[in-house]
Amino acid sequence: MNRHYIENDEDALKIGPLTLSSRLILGTGGAPSHRVISETITASGAEMVTVAIRRFDPTLRDGSIFEELAKLSVHVLPNTAGCFGARDAVLTAELGREALQTDLVKVEVISDQDTLLPDPLELARATEELVKRGFYVFAYTNDDPALASHLANLGATAVMPLGSPIGSGLGILNPHNIELIAERIECPVVLDAGIGCASDAAFAMELGCDAVLAASAITRAKVPKSMARSISMAVRAGRLSYLSGRIPRRRLAQASTTDEGKPFT
Amino acid sequence: MNRHYIENDEDALKIGPLTLSSRLILGTGGAPSHRVISETITASGAEMVTVAIRRFDPTLRDGSIFEELAKLSVHVLPNTAGCFGARDAVLTAELGREALQTDLVKVEVISDQDTLLPDPLELARATEELVKRGFYVFAYTNDDPALASHLANLGATAVMPLGSPIGSGLGILNPHNIELIAERIECPVVLDAGIGCASDAAFAMELGCDAVLAASAITRAKVPKSMARSISMAVRAGRLSYLSGRIPRRRLAQASTTDEGKPFT
Amino acid sequence: MNRHYIENDEDALKIGPLTLSSRLILGTGGAPSHRVISETITASGAEMVTVAIRRFDPTLRDGSIFEELAKLSVHVLPNTAGCFGARDAVLTAELGREALQTDLVKVEVISDQDTLLPDPLELARATEELVKRGFYVFAYTNDDPALASHLANLGATAVMPLGSPIGSGLGILNPHNIELIAERIECPVVLDAGIGCASDAAFAMELGCDAVLAASAITRAKVPKSMARSISMAVRAGRLSYLSGRIPRRRLAQASTTDEGKPFT
Amino acid sequence: MNRHYIENDEDALKIGPLTLSSRLILGTGGAPSHRVISETITASGAEMVTVAIRRFDPTLRDGSIFEELAKLSVHVLPNTAGCFGARDAVLTAELGREALQTDLVKVEVISDQDTLLPDPLELARATEELVKRGFYVFAYTNDDPALASHLANLGATAVMPLGSPIGSGLGILNPHNIELIAERIECPVVLDAGIGCASDAAFAMELGCDAVLAASAITRAKVPKSMARSISMAVRAGRLSYLSGRIPRRRLAQASTTDEGKPFT
Repeated sequence: MNRHYIENDEDALKIGPLTLSSRLILGTGGAPSHRVISETITASGAEMVTVAIRRFDPTLRDGSIFEELAKLSVHVLPNTAGCFGARDAVLTAELGREALQTDLVKVEVISDQDTLLPDPLELARATEELVKRGFYVFAYTNDDPALASHLANLGATAVMPLGSPIGSGLGILNPHNIELIAERIECPVVLDAGIGCASDAAFAMELGCDAVLAASAITRAKVPKSMARSISMAVRAGRLSYLSGRIPRRRLAQASTTDEGKPFT
Repeated sequence: MNRHYIENDEDALKIGPLTLSSRLILGTGGAPSHRVISETITASGAEMVTVAIRRFDPTLRDGSIFEELAKLSVHVLPNTAGCFGARDAVLTAELGREALQTDLVKVEVISDQDTLLPDPLELARATEELVKRGFYVFAYTNDDPALASHLANLGATAVMPLGSPIGSGLGILNPHNIELIAERIECPVVLDAGIGCASDAAFAMELGCDAVLAASAITRAKVPKSMARSISMAVRAGRLSYLSGRIPRRRLAQASTTDEGKPFT
Repeated sequence: MNRHYIENDEDALKIGPLTLSSRLILGTGGAPSHRVISETITASGAEMVTVAIRRFDPTLRDGSIFEELAKLSVHVLPNTAGCFGARDAVLTAELGREALQTDLVKVEVISDQDTLLPDPLELARATEELVKRGFYVFAYTNDDPALASHLANLGATAVMPLGSPIGSGLGILNPHNIELIAERIECPVVLDAGIGCASDAAFAMELGCDAVLAASAITRAKVPKSMARSISMAVRAGRLSYLSGRIPRRRLAQASTTDEGKPFT
Repeated sequence: MNRHYIENDEDALKIGPLTLSSRLILGTGGAPSHRVISETITASGAEMVTVAIRRFDPTLRDGSIFEELAKLSVHVLPNTAGCFGARDAVLTAELGREALQTDLVKVEVISDQDTLLPDPLELARATEELVKRGFYVFAYTNDDPALASHLANLGATAVMPLGSPIGSGLGILNPHNIELIAERIECPVVLDAGIGCASDAAFAMELGCDAVLAASAITRAKVPKSMARSISMAVRAGRLSYLSGRIPRRRLAQASTTDEGKPFT
């Protein structure tokens, strides 16, 4: 740690082929309109946005969300939301690559409609196959350190553990696991799913995550633009907090004003 | 809520005779030097700093912490740290008023050296007396909503509940109580004591607190300047998060990408 | 600790003038009928029951709850539920003493109807006065270790901190405070209010409480008799767990089956 | 729910080919001696005990842990502790079957020595293979509801999610997941690993688990025999609490003594 550190350009995030100065990745799901997406991107300063490939419609280039994102010069991270098996996810990823001309893909392989939890077995299969096919694979996973290790070993570009189910706003249900993942995985770790508010995002970064993805927390907030700005600041605050070396937790008090008189008058 | 709200000057905090644009109040306890205090004030943009009255030494005007603070044009909030009874606290407050020419005082009446928890009975007595004597009383209290009500009714300018013991870094041990206090008390509520890192500060603001006080979390961090900046951002992020209307918590998932096809291509 | 300890008669609770073998105290509030109260007493084996003094009606001796309790040979702990100030509580306590011929009293002085939280200032006044008048004072208090110390120093027979608001079923919101109280207070500590289920009761005992009071958790459960038995067992289990010396918490795993071969074949 | 329910024989646990009246399963790992194992079995009333197959030594029948268990008439559940891949686990299971003449096996496939977390991919493979080979498979798994579904669908006899890492004593880190698993899985769910004390065990049962496995919490407690009895009672208390219909959680208070006068004098 640089003792003179204050946030600066040197703290950029290298993730796959990209270098990002914002550690907040936006999701577009749940947004009521294109305008809201644009506003939240601008308000947050995010440089990467994930969009479901199934939203791509080749017959409509004008006015599509992809048009919109192109104007804002953000990196698009296509995702396989809605896929239920490895095969489905791989096919969808290929469609996305062709349509959007990018090797990036966030692989989501869902287990069931109620929880939208990732299916660990199909996820591992899809990751292995997509890496073989030359994708930069961002793997949306549960919070299991053992599965995260597998995904990293299979060549994932980034491991993206959930804090809690998609859209639940429950925050980080198992900080112990997220911290273990962040400590033990070499590739970037992005906290994905479950963020409900700013403190959740700051906490994720303090646990050692390299970035945070937020979708519903922003797009479904009462004032999305303002929440986008809030969560963006919280990610930066959490990153700085992590780098600044927090005080240890103590069971009892420690006087902040000592009794020994006047230490620095 | 203003639907177009993004943080702006209209969100200033009115507290006693003051109007503050920063909602972070700094403590100086635990700081290894005057330079660190100056740096953390500058890095955080804080406009109010609390200092133990017992640090004041009339024989030394030059080079005192008070000299230092005067140069930085921050509001000084003298505190009665180290006092064990109402009488002691009132006398100390009067000394501070005379020496520092301010009617502001943060009243601390400590119960014992191990926990440094406030003594509720002596605190109420001191608050009552100091209000009578014309002070603006910032009352450092436990997290009990019933005691907070008493203090507000006695005329406290601000109620300052702890998150956890001073210097413990344990964060907010009872969010339920802090939220009740913020909802039910008319005067400003400042989360005081226990903050360990940025997410704690953001969380306090999301619970509805009007401001946060941080001392050890900053002065004893590995890189105080950087942590000052982090916690300052977190307070702003938490305030915005509170104002932006967070999503409700849900037990199961809510798809951020709907199945109904392409909602806004 | 007796290394050969298994629950036995030697672990009786001495509290004021009484010696109890059951560490569960029952509340009667919320019970739909006398029969339910009798059943829960029998199913739990509780030896002490608290009843609101305002329920006493001198014109009705037969069929009153007090008649019922007399038949079951349990100790009655009259309480001042519904009192809003020290004076009210003291008068009510005196009425209870006269009517029920007992010097025991659980003093409740409520702050407001929404939270039913104890008023710390009036509680201290009432405790002081009732001790002077020769009562065995069981003081229903918040979870503040500093106030608990005051109450013990004022001569309370037992200090009864809440886990969370009465009837809320939120369990123990601040275990850190309850543990501090149990460690630091000489007189018996009874966890009162907030218990929702068996694990809450066991946890209270593991934090070092000497007993647990449960009312709504039992009387308002779907099957009160069965819940009474459950919570009674949980109190015993928690007490034994506390005495048996739990394993330390570890961040990583510790193999329960070692690799060093076959330790005891 | 039987409104007149109090624990009785009708609540026996059917698990694979067995019917158990005790819902506590003991682990032997960490025990300092055979005597301690015997004592904890007796004190707890447990009817099933899991033992690492690698402890079996065919050259030593007398004085082995298996001899000891045979005398106590408990069911032995051989486990594959220490195995790092599906193949290893399957071979070990076959050795156990031959040596111990039982089709029961608890399959553990470990990911790494630091966390001892289950490897989800190898676990699924091993479970599939062992079911094919006619075993009753008790699958030690992480707390992921999606993986638990897979294991149940593969034919596992019981799904055994961890609360936290083996021997950590951290309790149940993600109650939300455990509750989802208990709700959604048809076969018995046994909370395995992480239990540190009685309240953890009661909590597991209240979340809907069908049984609890405890090893280190008992064998490494200061007084194992007494802790065995404590955790055994806690499991029963938690089961009863689950069946008795707990009160809902409320944010504010609910008077247990109503104001409407004397409800049942």
